[in-house]
Amino acid sequence: MATASPRIVIVGGGFAGLWAARALRSAPVSILLIDRANHHLFQPLLYQVATAGLSSPDIAAPLRHILRKQGNVEVRMARVERVDVAARRVHCDDGGSAEYDTLLLASGATHAYFGHDDWAPFAPGLKTLDDALLLRRRLLLAFERAEAEIDPTKRAAWLSFAIVGGGPTGVELAGTLAEIARHTLKREFRHIDPAAARVRLIEAGPRILSSFPESLSAKARAQLERLGVEVMTGMPVEAIDAQGYRSGGVFVPARTVIWAAGVAASTLARSLDVELDRAGRVRVLPDLSVPGHPEIFVAGDLATVVQDGKPVPGVAPAAKQMGKHVARAIRDRLAGRTPPPFRYRDDGNLATIGRMAAVVDVYGLKLSGVLAWWFWLAAHVFFLIGFRNRLVVLLNWAVAYWSYQRAARIIIGHPQLGASGGEDEPEAG
Amino acid sequence: MATASPRIVIVGGGFAGLWAARALRSAPVSILLIDRANHHLFQPLLYQVATAGLSSPDIAAPLRHILRKQGNVEVRMARVERVDVAARRVHCDDGGSAEYDTLLLASGATHAYFGHDDWAPFAPGLKTLDDALLLRRRLLLAFERAEAEIDPTKRAAWLSFAIVGGGPTGVELAGTLAEIARHTLKREFRHIDPAAARVRLIEAGPRILSSFPESLSAKARAQLERLGVEVMTGMPVEAIDAQGYRSGGVFVPARTVIWAAGVAASTLARSLDVELDRAGRVRVLPDLSVPGHPEIFVAGDLATVVQDGKPVPGVAPAAKQMGKHVARAIRDRLAGRTPPPFRYRDDGNLATIGRMAAVVDVYGLKLSGVLAWWFWLAAHVFFLIGFRNRLVVLLNWAVAYWSYQRAARIIIGHPQLGASGGEDEPEAG
Repeated sequence: MATASPRIVIVGGGFAGLWAARALRSAPVSILLIDRANHHLFQPLLYQVATAGLSSPDIAAPLRHILRKQGNVEVRMARVERVDVAARRVHCDDGGSAEYDTLLLASGATHAYFGHDDWAPFAPGLKTLDDALLLRRRLLLAFERAEAEIDPTKRAAWLSFAIVGGGPTGVELAGTLAEIARHTLKREFRHIDPAAARVRLIEAGPRILSSFPESLSAKARAQLERLGVEVMTGMPVEAIDAQGYRSGGVFVPARTVIWAAGVAASTLARSLDVELDRAGRVRVLPDLSVPGHPEIFVAGDLATVVQDGKPVPGVAPAAKQMGKHVARAIRDRLAGRTPPPFRYRDDGNLATIGRMAAVVDVYGLKLSGVLAWWFWLAAHVFFLIGFRNRLVVLLNWAVAYWSYQRAARIIIGHPQLGASGGEDEPEAG
Repeated sequence: MATASPRIVIVGGGFAGLWAARALRSAPVSILLIDRANHHLFQPLLYQVATAGLSSPDIAAPLRHILRKQGNVEVRMARVERVDVAARRVHCDDGGSAEYDTLLLASGATHAYFGHDDWAPFAPGLKTLDDALLLRRRLLLAFERAEAEIDPTKRAAWLSFAIVGGGPTGVELAGTLAEIARHTLKREFRHIDPAAARVRLIEAGPRILSSFPESLSAKARAQLERLGVEVMTGMPVEAIDAQGYRSGGVFVPARTVIWAAGVAASTLARSLDVELDRAGRVRVLPDLSVPGHPEIFVAGDLATVVQDGKPVPGVAPAAKQMGKHVARAIRDRLAGRTPPPFRYRDDGNLATIGRMAAVVDVYGLKLSGVLAWWFWLAAHVFFLIGFRNRLVVLLNWAVAYWSYQRAARIIIGHPQLGASGGEDEPEAG
């Protein structure tokens, strides 16, 4: 690593940041990739960790390991707290800092409660592995609590699950949860019938999976209902507490509420002092750089890009394409060329619903049901990083489908705290 | 389940409790199995979770699932806090309680600091999955901290690991840690050489693996030293804090100290009001019942049994045998027969050391090295509960051995707190 080569700092080891780093492997640059986690996470399968189908290492790999052979990259595990645009320096929570010639901000998004942060403890969201393990604990403990509860009203509240938000994550969680209640837990309890659990998917808008064509939204709804999910559209949630939620003026008891309704960009963008959109994302220029700061790029969920009058969606393929584009822009500039504008290539849209159920909209091809599910499975396992992960994930899936079992039904962490809607703190021993 | 059948309460779903429950599958009894975890844990492989070779679901299975087809068992997830011997009732932390006709206490052991409980935050032990995940986080974060540290003295302290206690767990941890430092992390860091890490195994007694013949202790020591572990015997630890430990009057900097030096029985035995040994275990009668209380049995690590002048060791096979014996005693009494005394059948002793290194002492057969390691692997994978676990564990092992990689190198939970010797609290998102 020559010390005189341009210093590229990449904040975030998600799809945008990692793909940018890898696309710069032959470039004469020194890259520093900073992430608060030690791993790259395959977020499209995170709901599987939350629903006990996969374990954390199945969908995550250490960033250091992925990049170990790329000599021009250094990985640092830290949380970037602030960008000093004037000094061209990022500051981390561990007291360290790093100077850059070019900066790529790709710190992604987190779930957002639209001004209702007080709902957060009662309706956890799903963005990190820690989130997924917390959700898993709550889901599994709800059935344990129901089994131990004598009062039928309280028992019903423990067996009442609500997922707020009918996007892909909400649909995946609702479908899988219904499958767990109806099949996985069969015969395991003595005082409750897990199949009596009610799983409600609550969407404020007129239909679920609104990024899909209407026909597929309708098919997804039908598939969910066949799995036993109650789909409620046009139902904005008005309140959430430890006992349940209110919607349409009616309070519905539900001890487990999951938030899948919205995301907001990482707060890091605020230190850039540039215009942000309503969700806190940076309005970037066509080459993905920041207005007035050609040395700063933003990619992935932190960037807002409008193309042909529509925003580029916050999905993994878009993030990868942006990351690669930034790498190309950096290489172009080093070679004295002007980078082209970024163009998002829409390869389509997939969402899984549950056991052998999915919807697919790829290049005008619209599929639903079993065929769509196989398409979804192949695409996702194919894109998992690392041969070992793919093998293990396929094996887990195969066993899960033969047996209706879910391998990772292990409650980790303190049971009391995990299920009570409060803080999340594993016991020391 | 006939309501008139004798009520058997089993506290603890470890090897003793679970084997007792299963051995009662055809008995005309109503069994209530209570455990604070939702899973049975294959403790002999717990060190693999701590050292990132396996993930939690690989070595754990839900108790409900294991026992789902056994109609005379009910599983409850709760922590038993107290036994009311007079009322024949156990009281749980969730406010519930259960009456019994026969009680089996098999709540096991936890690590013990011999009157030095203040060492606990600085030298975590390894008994539960939560312990293992905490250790994993600390081990992996120590290398991250070393990489970020500029001061060479402080960096060396982050690369200094001490394992206190030269029993099987200490030996396994030390050997695996040396392998991680020398092989797994190779090429992944830019500022440190992980192979420069020092791994010390500190034993108070004159030799490691003292339950093995002296010749095998010596071979284990030689194998550990070949892996790069510094084995120090005759070195009682005098103090431990966040910076390191003191032994022989000398303070040794080590930011990661692991406690593998001793166990004490679960505190539950104290509520029995019977004689306990120094480690808090119950001195049971030859049929494993409690003196003066024929309706209470104790099995596994909570029981102290002396046979032929030697204590029965606290290992999984002994716990399984005790559990099965209690089941037989219960069946015998129901049939009006007097139960025979418990006899421990010693099938031998295995300990793994690291990559292709182990010691085996089975029926007079003494092995060490590669052959012993294969023996150890076969025995452990064979005894894992559940086909899926065996398959996945074998696959993980195979990939790990081809690649020197460890699948589960994923840091979960809050990095700051995880590595600082304080409480352990994952971040909420």
